[in-house]
Amino acid sequence: MRNIKLLLSYDGTDFSGWQRQPDRRTVQQVLEEAIGRLTGVEAPTNASGRTDAGVHALGQVVHFYTASRHPPEVFVKALNAMLPPDIRVRGASEVPQSFHATLDAKSKRYRYVIDNGPVADPFQLRYSDHVYQRLDEGAMNRAAQALKGRHDFHSFETNWPNRTSSVRTIYDIQASRAGHIIHVEVEADGFLYNMVRSITGTLVLVGLGRWPESKVGEALAAEDRREAGPTAPPQGLFLVYVRYPGDPDGPSDR
Amino acid sequence: MRNIKLLLSYDGTDFSGWQRQPDRRTVQQVLEEAIGRLTGVEAPTNASGRTDAGVHALGQVVHFYTASRHPPEVFVKALNAMLPPDIRVRGASEVPQSFHATLDAKSKRYRYVIDNGPVADPFQLRYSDHVYQRLDEGAMNRAAQALKGRHDFHSFETNWPNRTSSVRTIYDIQASRAGHIIHVEVEADGFLYNMVRSITGTLVLVGLGRWPESKVGEALAAEDRREAGPTAPPQGLFLVYVRYPGDPDGPSDR
Repeated sequence: MRNIKLLLSYDGTDFSGWQRQPDRRTVQQVLEEAIGRLTGVEAPTNASGRTDAGVHALGQVVHFYTASRHPPEVFVKALNAMLPPDIRVRGASEVPQSFHATLDAKSKRYRYVIDNGPVADPFQLRYSDHVYQRLDEGAMNRAAQALKGRHDFHSFETNWPNRTSSVRTIYDIQASRAGHIIHVEVEADGFLYNMVRSITGTLVLVGLGRWPESKVGEALAAEDRREAGPTAPPQGLFLVYVRYPGDPDGPSDR
Repeated sequence: MRNIKLLLSYDGTDFSGWQRQPDRRTVQQVLEEAIGRLTGVEAPTNASGRTDAGVHALGQVVHFYTASRHPPEVFVKALNAMLPPDIRVRGASEVPQSFHATLDAKSKRYRYVIDNGPVADPFQLRYSDHVYQRLDEGAMNRAAQALKGRHDFHSFETNWPNRTSSVRTIYDIQASRAGHIIHVEVEADGFLYNMVRSITGTLVLVGLGRWPESKVGEALAAEDRREAGPTAPPQGLFLVYVRYPGDPDGPSDR
């Protein structure tokens, strides 16, 4: 069996997230069906991580085992011909048998998009959360730095049974503005459930001036979800890229 | 009666264009209904020009007469509260009685967006035409300059009864690339039916290397639609802005 790694983009709007669920349109189900039509066998796929309903991916990484002899570039063309247009395969490669998209991920980067114009941009409806009050992105960026490094992020996760540890390492966190669009980007060795969305909801309180910058570090130290801000809605969240050992440093996609 | 000018953005995907038609969801109908709910009278509106089904607007300009005494900023807030999220009022002002959004327009600027990545970008599906073969945007830009100036653009219009003259003046025309996205932008004193879409379809032939750059000027001189390239599909087209006498020069919106 060969181990095939795929790089995927998807618009999460019309999917009930990554993971297969009965009677729901999910990315995993649609992808596995396409692989089944191409190879004759519906192979199970593993992604770097689940994305929730409405969450988008610019560079999700998935792998699956197959006996098919197609060269990797054929997987790109043939799967794209079979997939609906809201999922695209951007690349395929054959990787060692031992490669596992979930377990081997070294870091992942997420972006949360805030539409911060006084009037919501109709072209950003599916891809952002709209905050009409002017946000101070400089204050958001400074406050965010308290989260950088290795910490227990229990204040920034929502219920997730079977989680043994809430300790993660944030390598990079930034808030920046381009025109009326604010990006909150977070790169970490792993993410807790709703972590980027609750970090964003907290930083928005700082950007609005309702929280002093120092309160973000205090919320982190409290290790209590009630001490942090609200969870921002899913449609602003993008999985930007996933990095594996041996990948080059620096932004790998877009 | 007061004369109110509105600046509108709309995502054209789910509209059958600007103009009212029986049993179709159009921008004009949805806007006039909202004005009717706000003022108690469904006022007829005039736009700078019609946009076709699927065509988008970043800065469409519309005016209407009303006896309502609301200050302009109330029109922005109240209409946005009543309009569906795929239309937004970005600004409102009271203008002289004589102002007419169609007749007074000095120039309009359109943008055509081409997704020129090898694999279609799922986030650009509604907002671009995908051309997977690599386009030479430098050649497209050079070839486009033959269209600048005052010409008979009959080669770049599709059937449009009652048209008395096909002479228009293009003030600026550019093709440029940012990553996998190519913009074809055209500013003119007026546009014929499908003019930007047929210019784009023609420039794509140049970008593909199927036409020499010189052939664009020859197609223009022929004054025959059959001598130019195909009409690009509607979803890549955006009305960027409309300029009126007295407006400042330079990009007025975005």
